[in-house]
Amino acid sequence: MRLPARLSLLVALTTITGVGPLAYTQPRRPPNFIVILADDQGYGDLGSYGHPTLRTPNLDRMAAEGQRWTSFYAAPVCTPSRAQLMTGRLAVRTGLAGGVLFPDSTGGLQPAEITVAEVLKARGYRTAAIGKWHLGVLPEYLPNNQGFDSYFGIPYSNDMDQVGDVSSDERFRRYMDARIEYFNVPLMRNGTIVERPAQQTTITRRYTDDAIAFIKAHREEPFFLYLAHNFPHMPLFRSKEFENHSQRGLYGDVVEELDANVGRILAALRELNLDGDTLVLYMSDNGPWAPYLEEGGSAGLLRGAKASTWEGGMRVPAIFWWPGTITPAVVTGIGSELDVLPTLAALAGSQVPTDRVLDGYDLSATLKRGEPSPRHTVFYYATTGSGVLSAVRRDAFKAFFVVPTTDAPASTSPQLYNLDQDPSEKYDLAKSHPEIVAELRTLADDHAKTVVAVKNQLATRPPSKAPRP
Amino acid sequence: MRLPARLSLLVALTTITGVGPLAYTQPRRPPNFIVILADDQGYGDLGSYGHPTLRTPNLDRMAAEGQRWTSFYAAPVCTPSRAQLMTGRLAVRTGLAGGVLFPDSTGGLQPAEITVAEVLKARGYRTAAIGKWHLGVLPEYLPNNQGFDSYFGIPYSNDMDQVGDVSSDERFRRYMDARIEYFNVPLMRNGTIVERPAQQTTITRRYTDDAIAFIKAHREEPFFLYLAHNFPHMPLFRSKEFENHSQRGLYGDVVEELDANVGRILAALRELNLDGDTLVLYMSDNGPWAPYLEEGGSAGLLRGAKASTWEGGMRVPAIFWWPGTITPAVVTGIGSELDVLPTLAALAGSQVPTDRVLDGYDLSATLKRGEPSPRHTVFYYATTGSGVLSAVRRDAFKAFFVVPTTDAPASTSPQLYNLDQDPSEKYDLAKSHPEIVAELRTLADDHAKTVVAVKNQLATRPPSKAPRP
Repeated sequence: MRLPARLSLLVALTTITGVGPLAYTQPRRPPNFIVILADDQGYGDLGSYGHPTLRTPNLDRMAAEGQRWTSFYAAPVCTPSRAQLMTGRLAVRTGLAGGVLFPDSTGGLQPAEITVAEVLKARGYRTAAIGKWHLGVLPEYLPNNQGFDSYFGIPYSNDMDQVGDVSSDERFRRYMDARIEYFNVPLMRNGTIVERPAQQTTITRRYTDDAIAFIKAHREEPFFLYLAHNFPHMPLFRSKEFENHSQRGLYGDVVEELDANVGRILAALRELNLDGDTLVLYMSDNGPWAPYLEEGGSAGLLRGAKASTWEGGMRVPAIFWWPGTITPAVVTGIGSELDVLPTLAALAGSQVPTDRVLDGYDLSATLKRGEPSPRHTVFYYATTGSGVLSAVRRDAFKAFFVVPTTDAPASTSPQLYNLDQDPSEKYDLAKSHPEIVAELRTLADDHAKTVVAVKNQLATRPPSKAPRP
Repeated sequence: MRLPARLSLLVALTTITGVGPLAYTQPRRPPNFIVILADDQGYGDLGSYGHPTLRTPNLDRMAAEGQRWTSFYAAPVCTPSRAQLMTGRLAVRTGLAGGVLFPDSTGGLQPAEITVAEVLKARGYRTAAIGKWHLGVLPEYLPNNQGFDSYFGIPYSNDMDQVGDVSSDERFRRYMDARIEYFNVPLMRNGTIVERPAQQTTITRRYTDDAIAFIKAHREEPFFLYLAHNFPHMPLFRSKEFENHSQRGLYGDVVEELDANVGRILAALRELNLDGDTLVLYMSDNGPWAPYLEEGGSAGLLRGAKASTWEGGMRVPAIFWWPGTITPAVVTGIGSELDVLPTLAALAGSQVPTDRVLDGYDLSATLKRGEPSPRHTVFYYATTGSGVLSAVRRDAFKAFFVVPTTDAPASTSPQLYNLDQDPSEKYDLAKSHPEIVAELRTLADDHAKTVVAVKNQLATRPPSKAPRP
C-alpha cells in the first residue's frame, strides 16, 4: 500500500497547495480502523436517527461527515452479535447463537476461529480491545488470545455477577435504582482483574482515555481498535458531569456521555492528523432492552426490541466515518456486522480465511465510491434453542417462518413484509404474494444446507441456571 | 425596519469584505415569509426525522441549515389545523374543531377572524395562497377574502367530490388504485374554477411554478406566501418524473416530489439573492393517515396517527430556514402552528389582534437567538363533537382526560406520560404521579374557562351526510 513516487509527490503537492482531495483518496498507508460498539442502543436512540429529545451532536456530526446506514444488522443479543462482528461468520456456525454466555459458562469463541484482529495483526496492525468482551471468560477465549495485543475491559455484561441470589422483583428494582455494589463485575487488564466491582460511573470516560492513549502510542503504525462500551445496557451509570445532562432522563444521560466520548476520539484523530487515515465505525450490538420502561431505549419506527427477530431487535444505528475517503451519504442498502471483517481486510490488503464459510461481504466499494451494497440477504436467527432460523430477507422482502413471540402469538405460518415500504412490519403480504414467500423459503433452505452442527458453547453452564438474555 | 445610516454602511462594508454575518442579522427590510404545508405527512416521513428509505435531501439540507423542531404541533385533522395556522387561535374558538369541512358545508373560517395574511397585508406585504384551502367554499371564506391578494388551488381535500355514491370497499379500492377521474376536485384561481377534475399528477410542480412566479414578481417588496400542497394526502399522484423514484413506493414517490419542489423554492430564493431576507417554514398539517396501509405515512416512533390526540396525530415535522439569521440547531422545545401568526407579526413589526384570545406565542427569540421556546403548554382537542379537550401538556408531562379510541379502549381514567423520556407514550405514570395529573387537571380547567361557545361551522352540512375525517 506504499504509494509510488509520483503519487507521493502529488500528495505532497496537494497538501501544500490544497488543490484537491487526491491526497486522501489514496491512503498513505494501510488505514487505521476503529470499531466503536454501543450495547443495547436502539435504532431510534440518536438525534440523526430521529429521537426527539436525545441529543447526540458528535454522532450526528460523524453521520453528516460520513455514511449513515439505515439498514444495518447485528444479532438480537450480545454474544452472537460480538461473535459475528469478530469472525464475519453467523453465530450459528461458531456455537454462539441462541442466547448469551454467563460468568459461569465454560464455553466461548473457539481459538480456532479467526478474528478480524487476527486478520489485521497478520498484516502488521497493532490491535487493542477495550470494553465488554462477552465471548468467554476462560483465558483461551479472552481478547489477548484472539488477536488483540492488549485488553482492558469487563469480560461479560455489566449486569452479570449480581450480589446475592435475588428475586425477579428485586432484580428489577436493582436495575431501576442501580448501585455499583449490586453488580460484582470485574474490570480486567490483559487477563488480570484490576478492579471489582468495576466503577461503572466512570467507565465510559476511562475506556475512552485508554483508547486515546492507544491511538497516540501507535500513531506511526496501522492500528485496529475495538472499543466496546458497556452502555446503555442496564444497569445505567454515568459520571457526575452527565447527571441530568439529558432531557431524555437517565438513559439519555448515559447515551449523551457515550456521544461526548465518541467526540473525544474523533477530536484526537483530528489533532493527530490521523482523521484522513482512519475508518471509524460506530454501531450498536442489538436493539433496545424493552422490559426496563423508560430506562430502555427506543427502536424508533421499527417493531420489536432486543432478543426478537423483528427489525427492532436486529437493525441498529451504524455510521462509517473516514474524512476524504467516504463521501457523506445516507446509505439505504443492506449491511451487517458480518461485513466488518471482509471490509477491513480488503481495505488493509489482507487475506480473509478461505478454509471456512464466511457470511460477510466486502463493503469497501460502497464506502469509497458509493456503489450499491453487495449485500442482498439477511438471516435472522432467534434467541431460542441453539439458533433457530426465524426469518430471511432478500432486498426489500422479509419472510418469517418462525414468528417471534415477543409481541404477538407464536406462529409458524409464514409472514411477509416489504421493509422498504413498510419498515415497521405492519402489513403482512404473505397471502397476496405466496410466490415471494416460496422464493424466500428456498433461500432459507439453501442457506440451512450450509450450516453444519457445532458444539453449542452457550450450553456449558451448570444446568441449574436458567438462561437469561 | 430600515437600517440607520451607520448600520447600512456596515452592511455595505461587510458585503464587500466578507467580514461577518452582521449584514444578515439585521434584515434590510421586513423579511419575506413562506409557509409550506404538507398534507398528512407523518412525523417520521423525512430522512432527517429518521425514515430509513424515504429520501428527502432538500428538506434534510434545509434542516441542516436551519432549525429542526422535534416537538412542534398541529391539530389532528386538516380543517382545524389550517384554521389554527391562519388565526393563531385554537380551532375550538372559531367553530372549526372536531372534524373537517366538506364540499357541501356552508360554514367556514368567519371573515371576522383575522388571518396572518391580513396582519401582514396591513404592514404592506404582498400575499398569496397557493394550494389546498379547506376553510370553506363559499366566496366569503375563500383566500381572496381572507387577506390574500391571490389564490390558486383546490378548496378542500384532494379526495373529496368523489364521482358517484360509492361503498366503503369501493372507496378503499379507489384510494389504493387511484385515477384522476374518480375525484372531481376543482382547481380554482381567484374564485374561478379553471380545471376540473384537477390534474393531480402535475399539481405539486404547478403549485411550485406559481409560487416561484409570485416570488419573482415581488422580489422588491416584502411578501407572504402560503403554499399548502395537496399531498401526501390520499389519493396519491405524482408526475412521470417521480414514478418509481423512491425505495418507499408510491407514498415515497409523492413525498420525494414534494421534497424536490421545496428544493426548487429554496434555489429560487438563493438565485434571487432573497435567501437572507426570507424565513421559510416547512411543516405538516397533522399525522399520517393510517387506514391506507403502506400508502399512509409513518409517525416514526410516535404513537397514533391522524385524527387521534396521541402524539402521532398532532406532532409534525417542522423546519425553519433563514440563512444568516437562524443558527442551525435541533430545537426540542415546544412549538405550534398557533405560533406562526404572532411570530411572523413580531418579525414583520406588525401588531397582533388585541380584541380576542390568541393562543400563539412569538417564537422569534428562539429562531433568531436560540433562546428557549416561550411555549410550555399544548391543548389537544379531539376530532369528536365540536371540540373535546382530550389531553393537555405542560413541559414534559401530558395528561389524557379523554383517551383516544383509535388504538385503545375509550377511557376517561386519566393517563399521564413523560414525553421527554417516553415520546412513544408507552408508560402511564398516572398512578405514581397523581399530583402531576391534578396540576394538569387544573390547567385544563383554567383553559376551559377561556373557551366561549361559538357556532360550530362543521355542523353546516346536509344532515344526511355522515362526517368523515
